[in-house]
Amino acid sequence: MGKAHSNAWAKVAQFFDVPFAPILKVACAVHEGPLRNLAETWGWESITTDWRDAVTRDDVDVVDIAVPTHLHRDIAVEAAKAGKHLFCEKPAALDSRQAIEMCEAAAKAGIVHYLNHNYRRCPAVALAKQLVDEGAIGRVFHWRGAYLQSWITDEDFPLTWQLRKERAGSGAHSDLNSHLVDLARYLVGEIASVSAMTARFIRERPLPFEGTSGAFQAGSSSQEMGEVTVDDAAFVLAEFANGALGSFESSRFAPGRKNYNCFEIYGSGGSLAFNLERMNELRYFSTMDAAHTQGFRTILATEELHPYAGRWWPPGHIIGYEHTFVHAMADFLTAIHKGKGIRPNFYDAVREMQVLDAALESAGEGRRVQVPVT
Amino acid sequence: MGKAHSNAWAKVAQFFDVPFAPILKVACAVHEGPLRNLAETWGWESITTDWRDAVTRDDVDVVDIAVPTHLHRDIAVEAAKAGKHLFCEKPAALDSRQAIEMCEAAAKAGIVHYLNHNYRRCPAVALAKQLVDEGAIGRVFHWRGAYLQSWITDEDFPLTWQLRKERAGSGAHSDLNSHLVDLARYLVGEIASVSAMTARFIRERPLPFEGTSGAFQAGSSSQEMGEVTVDDAAFVLAEFANGALGSFESSRFAPGRKNYNCFEIYGSGGSLAFNLERMNELRYFSTMDAAHTQGFRTILATEELHPYAGRWWPPGHIIGYEHTFVHAMADFLTAIHKGKGIRPNFYDAVREMQVLDAALESAGEGRRVQVPVT
Amino acid sequence: MGKAHSNAWAKVAQFFDVPFAPILKVACAVHEGPLRNLAETWGWESITTDWRDAVTRDDVDVVDIAVPTHLHRDIAVEAAKAGKHLFCEKPAALDSRQAIEMCEAAAKAGIVHYLNHNYRRCPAVALAKQLVDEGAIGRVFHWRGAYLQSWITDEDFPLTWQLRKERAGSGAHSDLNSHLVDLARYLVGEIASVSAMTARFIRERPLPFEGTSGAFQAGSSSQEMGEVTVDDAAFVLAEFANGALGSFESSRFAPGRKNYNCFEIYGSGGSLAFNLERMNELRYFSTMDAAHTQGFRTILATEELHPYAGRWWPPGHIIGYEHTFVHAMADFLTAIHKGKGIRPNFYDAVREMQVLDAALESAGEGRRVQVPVT
Amino acid sequence: MGKAHSNAWAKVAQFFDVPFAPILKVACAVHEGPLRNLAETWGWESITTDWRDAVTRDDVDVVDIAVPTHLHRDIAVEAAKAGKHLFCEKPAALDSRQAIEMCEAAAKAGIVHYLNHNYRRCPAVALAKQLVDEGAIGRVFHWRGAYLQSWITDEDFPLTWQLRKERAGSGAHSDLNSHLVDLARYLVGEIASVSAMTARFIRERPLPFEGTSGAFQAGSSSQEMGEVTVDDAAFVLAEFANGALGSFESSRFAPGRKNYNCFEIYGSGGSLAFNLERMNELRYFSTMDAAHTQGFRTILATEELHPYAGRWWPPGHIIGYEHTFVHAMADFLTAIHKGKGIRPNFYDAVREMQVLDAALESAGEGRRVQVPVT
Repeated sequence: MGKAHSNAWAKVAQFFDVPFAPILKVACAVHEGPLRNLAETWGWESITTDWRDAVTRDDVDVVDIAVPTHLHRDIAVEAAKAGKHLFCEKPAALDSRQAIEMCEAAAKAGIVHYLNHNYRRCPAVALAKQLVDEGAIGRVFHWRGAYLQSWITDEDFPLTWQLRKERAGSGAHSDLNSHLVDLARYLVGEIASVSAMTARFIRERPLPFEGTSGAFQAGSSSQEMGEVTVDDAAFVLAEFANGALGSFESSRFAPGRKNYNCFEIYGSGGSLAFNLERMNELRYFSTMDAAHTQGFRTILATEELHPYAGRWWPPGHIIGYEHTFVHAMADFLTAIHKGKGIRPNFYDAVREMQVLDAALESAGEGRRVQVPVT
Repeated sequence: MGKAHSNAWAKVAQFFDVPFAPILKVACAVHEGPLRNLAETWGWESITTDWRDAVTRDDVDVVDIAVPTHLHRDIAVEAAKAGKHLFCEKPAALDSRQAIEMCEAAAKAGIVHYLNHNYRRCPAVALAKQLVDEGAIGRVFHWRGAYLQSWITDEDFPLTWQLRKERAGSGAHSDLNSHLVDLARYLVGEIASVSAMTARFIRERPLPFEGTSGAFQAGSSSQEMGEVTVDDAAFVLAEFANGALGSFESSRFAPGRKNYNCFEIYGSGGSLAFNLERMNELRYFSTMDAAHTQGFRTILATEELHPYAGRWWPPGHIIGYEHTFVHAMADFLTAIHKGKGIRPNFYDAVREMQVLDAALESAGEGRRVQVPVT
Repeated sequence: MGKAHSNAWAKVAQFFDVPFAPILKVACAVHEGPLRNLAETWGWESITTDWRDAVTRDDVDVVDIAVPTHLHRDIAVEAAKAGKHLFCEKPAALDSRQAIEMCEAAAKAGIVHYLNHNYRRCPAVALAKQLVDEGAIGRVFHWRGAYLQSWITDEDFPLTWQLRKERAGSGAHSDLNSHLVDLARYLVGEIASVSAMTARFIRERPLPFEGTSGAFQAGSSSQEMGEVTVDDAAFVLAEFANGALGSFESSRFAPGRKNYNCFEIYGSGGSLAFNLERMNELRYFSTMDAAHTQGFRTILATEELHPYAGRWWPPGHIIGYEHTFVHAMADFLTAIHKGKGIRPNFYDAVREMQVLDAALESAGEGRRVQVPVT
Repeated sequence: MGKAHSNAWAKVAQFFDVPFAPILKVACAVHEGPLRNLAETWGWESITTDWRDAVTRDDVDVVDIAVPTHLHRDIAVEAAKAGKHLFCEKPAALDSRQAIEMCEAAAKAGIVHYLNHNYRRCPAVALAKQLVDEGAIGRVFHWRGAYLQSWITDEDFPLTWQLRKERAGSGAHSDLNSHLVDLARYLVGEIASVSAMTARFIRERPLPFEGTSGAFQAGSSSQEMGEVTVDDAAFVLAEFANGALGSFESSRFAPGRKNYNCFEIYGSGGSLAFNLERMNELRYFSTMDAAHTQGFRTILATEELHPYAGRWWPPGHIIGYEHTFVHAMADFLTAIHKGKGIRPNFYDAVREMQVLDAALESAGEGRRVQVPVT
C-alpha cells in the first residue's frame, strides 16, 4: 500500500491537471528499516515512526491513512482535529461506531475526507456509473457482486493481521465485501436489509514470526499455532431501498481467482457486467438495440471520451491497478482546491460499515437484519 | 416440452445402443388440436385427452410426465400404481409433501422412476462430476449457482400458468432454483440450511385469453388484470452438509440472459465453471498444474472420451439443448433393462423440494431454516 | 456423413414446414455391412452397393452425394442426366474442371442442384448475411478466415483417403479452405486474385489396413508406409473484386483447435466475428452505437426472430452441428417445390474451385494468380 | 512517445533494482513549446531543438530515439559515433539498408544498442518465450499474427506523417507488422520467405495544418488534399526457416479493434495465444494434460513467479501499456552495467527490416520473395 500510494502521489501531477503538485513531506510506519527504503525510493522528505507527530505537523496539509484497519479511527480523528484533509484506505474502520466517530470528527473539522474505494475510479466502472445516470439500464432489478481470491487456501499460510479480528474487524467480509458494498451503493443505491452466512474453513494457522507485519513470506511462520478469528468467506443477500434484490459474495478460498472483483447489474433497460481482472472492459447489454442484434457488448474503456482514460495512452492501450489511485488523488486534490466534498467519504464509510455490521449480525443470529436508516 | 420429449424418444435408438427401441404409443394433452399435430409430426400411434386412460393402458410400459407442475403428483401416483416406469419433468411437484407421496408410490410399486434434470447429462456437466469423483478439485469450499432469464421483464407479458402459485408452486424459485439445487446436490452434496430472499417486481399482469395454455403469444392477452402470485426472483444462501458455503440465484428479470444456467465450484484442488448458454464447454482450474501455467482452461467436451459425446459427431462439432434429453432417455431405458435405479429420481425430488420449501420458508419468515434430514 | 445426412432427412419435416416429407428410398455405399446398419438405424427402405443403380431408379427424385470427393463428378453427372435433384457434399470436386462438368450437366438437366456448405445456414452466419445485406457493416475492408483442426498431428495417424491427392484433390486446402471460400463469397463477394503457401509437416504415414475407408481406428494401421500427397496446411491471401483484402488459413496441425472455423469481417460501418465451436453466437461491432458504448457484442442467435432459430427451442437453448443440415434440406426441398434455385449450387462450386485451384497454382509457382472471371 | 518514455525512465528505479538511476539530462524535439511542457512535467534538466547537440553532450551516456522513422538512421549513427548507448523506437528505419548502417555504426562503436519492441517484455509474452524455451509446445507448425487498429478509417482523418512514405517508410506494414515480425522471430525463429498483399482504401486525405506533427486534432485539417503514399493494410504469408507456416496481418481499417496485437502459435506439444488488449493474459494449450481435461487455459501473468510481474502488485492486480517500457529500460540499464548485449537490438532491426522489405517487394511484384540470409 505504501508503494501504491507513493507511486500515485508522484504521478498525479504528471498525468492530470491538478491544482496542487503533492509534496511528499513525511512517511510514517512502525518499522524504520522498510520505512527508510520507502522514503528513499519515492522521495519522501522525512520519516517518523510516531503517527501523532506526522499528523500534527504544520507543513502537512493532507494525511494519507494506509495502515491496518484497527488504527484508522484514532489517526483519522486526531488528524481531523489538526485540520488535515484525509485520504483514508478502506475498510474505514473496525465497525460502524468507529466510522461514525470518524465522520463526526471530519464534519466538525470541515476538512475534505475521502475513503479510498479506488475501484469506483476504474474508467470502466466510472463509465458504468455514467450509463446508470443516463438511464441506460432503467429500473434496477438485480445487483450480483462477488470478490473472490485464493491467497490463504494453503493451510500453512500464517496467521497475519488480516486473519485476526482485533486488527481487521472481520475477514473476507470487511476486506472484500466492503468493496462490493461501496460499488453497489455507488451504482444501485442504499441497502435496506441483509441476510448473510459466513464460513471459516481453516480454524488454526501457524503464527508468523515476530516482526513480520502482514506480508506472507516463505518460511516466515513458526510451529506455534493461533486461532483464526475472522471469516474466510462471507455471502450476503440484500434488499435495496429501491426494491432491487442483490448479493455480495466474498471469499479468500476460490482457487483460480486472484483479484476477481466482479459485478452484474440487471435493469429494465439493460445490464452491466464488470470484472477487475479485466478492469479496462465494461460489458453492457441494451434492450434499445435492434432486436436481432442485441447482445452483451464489451466496451474497452480506453477512449479519449471515457472517464479518466484520455489522460493516459491512445485507445486500446490498457492501464492497470495503480492508475485508479492516481484518479482518486486527482479528484481529491481538486476537491480540496474547490472546497467541495468528494465521494466516497466518511459518510459513505458509515453507511457501508452499517451494512457490513448488519450482515455480520445476520450471519451470527440466523435472521434477516435491517440496515439502520441514518 | 412435448416436442423436446417426442424428438428425444425418436432419436435415442439411433444414436445410443439402448436395450429397447421406444414405441410412441399414446400422446395425451388437454387440447385435442395441438395434440393431433404433435402425434402426426412425431408418429404417436394414438392420442387421448384423458390422462387416466393413458397411464393405465396395458400396452404402455413407460409414462413420460411433461405437464404443468400441479398435475405431477396425481399422474405419477396413478401411473406408479399401474406399474408404469416414470420419466417425470421437473420441478417434481408443488412442494415436498407431494414429492414424498410420489416417492412412496414409486417405491411401493417397484418401478424405475426418473426426475428429468436433464442438465446433469450435458457432457460438460457429466465431465464435471467425473472430475469431482476423481478428486480433481479436492475439498469443496464453494458452490455459486445462478439461473438467469429475462422472458417476463415486459410488464405486458400475460399471467400464464407459470406465474400462478396454484399451478406452479413458486416462480423462478421452483422453475430455476430447482435446476441449481439438483446440480449442487449432484456435484457438491446435501444442503443443511438456507437463507433466502425473493422479489416480485411486477404485481399485476394482463390475463391471457382462455384457451392459451402457457406460451406467450403476441396479442394473446386481454385488458383484464390478475395478480402475480409467485416470485420473479429468488436468491438463496446455503450451507452444505460438508461445510461448503454456497448460493443459488435465480431470476426471470435479467435482460441479456436467456437461459443462463451457470455454476462455479471452488475446491482445495481446483475449480470448475459451467454456463448452459455454452453448454459444450467446461472451465477447469487445477492447482496441480505447474505454478507458472495455472489458469482456467476451457474444455470443449466433444471428444470421444467425454461422457455421451462420442455417440454424436467428431470432436469440435457441438451439440445442443435437446441432446440432453436423449442422454437421459438412453440411461433411463438402460436402467429399466437392468432393473436398477437411475438418478435423479423421486428420492432426489424429495430432497430437492425440501431445500426449495426451506428457502421459501426462510424468505417468508426472515430467518435461516434447517433442511430436514430425511 | 451418412449419419448426419440420414438424421437430417428424418428430422426436417418434424421441425420445418416443408412441401415434401422425404422418404428414404435407397442407401448406397461400398461396404455392405456398415450400409445395412445405417439403413436399419435410419429406416432406409433398401440398400445397394452400385451407385449407378441408385441414381437411376424411377422412385428416386433426389440424390444426396456424400462420398469421397473423387467420386462426386461421375455420380453428379449421371444423376443429373437421370433428372434427379442433387444435394451434394463439399468440396464439390477434385478441381474446377470437374466442377464445370457438374455445373453444365445440372444446367442442361434443369434440376435443382445444391452444394452443401451447411455452415451458411448456422443461424448466426445467416444473421451475419442479413446484417451485411442491411448495410450494417458498410464497405468491407477485410475478411479474415481460419479453419483449424488437429486430428492428424499424431505422426502415427494412418494414410486415410483424405491424405491422398487422387482421392481428395488436396488436403486442408480443399477440405477446410473450401468452407472459408464459400463463406467469404457469401458474405463479402467474389475473389479476384490469390497468393498462397502450403505446408506438409509429415511426409510419410502408415498405410491403413485394407477395408478401412477413412475413419481413423486405433490399431488400424500396418507397419507399411505411404507418402502423404496433400497439404497439411494452406494459407491464402486474397484480393476481392470489391477491393477488400482477405486471408484464408487452414490447417490440420493446430493443437487445441478441433473444428475451429472462424472468420472476422471488417467494414466501414462495423465488424462481424464468428467461431463454429461457439456456433450459436455472432459477434458484432457497430460504428453507429453511441461513441462511449461501442464494443463487440455477442449475439446469441437463438431468438424467434433469428434465421431458422424459431423452429427449434426457446431463446438461449442452443443447437448443434447437425441442425445446419436440417436447415439446408428444408431450403432445398422448398426450392424443388418452387422450381427455383438454391445457393450455394454447382455454379458456386465452379467459382469456389477456381479460387482453390488458383491458390494451389500460386503456392506451387510462387506467384500471385488471378482467379478466372467466369 | 515522449510521455511514455519519460514516465518509464522516471519509474524504472522505483520498481526495479537497476544499477543506475537514470538522470533526465536533456530533452530534444522540433517544437519548443510542447518540449518545454514535457521537460517541466517530467523533470528533464534541459531542452534543445538540435538533436546533434543533444547526442554529443559529454554528460549524456544514453540516447533514447523516439522520433519519426526517417530520422532514426542519422541520429543513431551520430550518437553511436559519439559512444552513446542507444535505446531506439521501432520501426528501426525506413528500410533494411538504413538498418544495416545503424547496426554497423553501433557494432563499430561497441555500444549497447536496443530496439524497443517493448511487447516482448509484457509478462505474458515473456512467459510465452519461457514456455517455448522449456519445450512446452514442441515443434512449431504455425505462427498466426495480426495487429489490427481502426484510427484512420474516417476519410477525414488528415494526412499525418505516418501516412507519407518519405517519413514512415510504409504504413500499417512498418508500424504494425514490424511488431509482429519481431514477436515471431523471438518466439518462433527466422523467416525464410514471404508472399504479401497490401491495400490502400483511401487514396487522398486532407493535409494537416502546418505545425501539427502527427497527432490528430479535431479541426486540424485544411481543405487541401494530399496523396496517401503508404499502405492501409498489409497481409503477409511466411515460411520460417524451421518449416513453420505463418502469417502477419496488419490493418488500420478494422473497426472494433484499437490495439489488437494478437498471435497464436501451434506446436506439436501445445499452443499459445496472446492479445495485447488483454495483455496480462496468456492462453496456453498443452497436449500433455490428461486427455479429458485438455483445453486452452487462460494464465493471468501477474504472479510473483511470472517474468517482471513480481516487481509490481499482488497477484491479480494487472498492469498496463507503459509498464513494458519500464521492463525494457530495466533490462537495458542492466545490459549497460554488465557490458553485455540486449535483444532485440540493431542486428534484429536488420533482420526484421529485411523481412519487411521482402514483403513489400512481394506485394509489389506479385511473387514470393526470399529473405536474405545475413
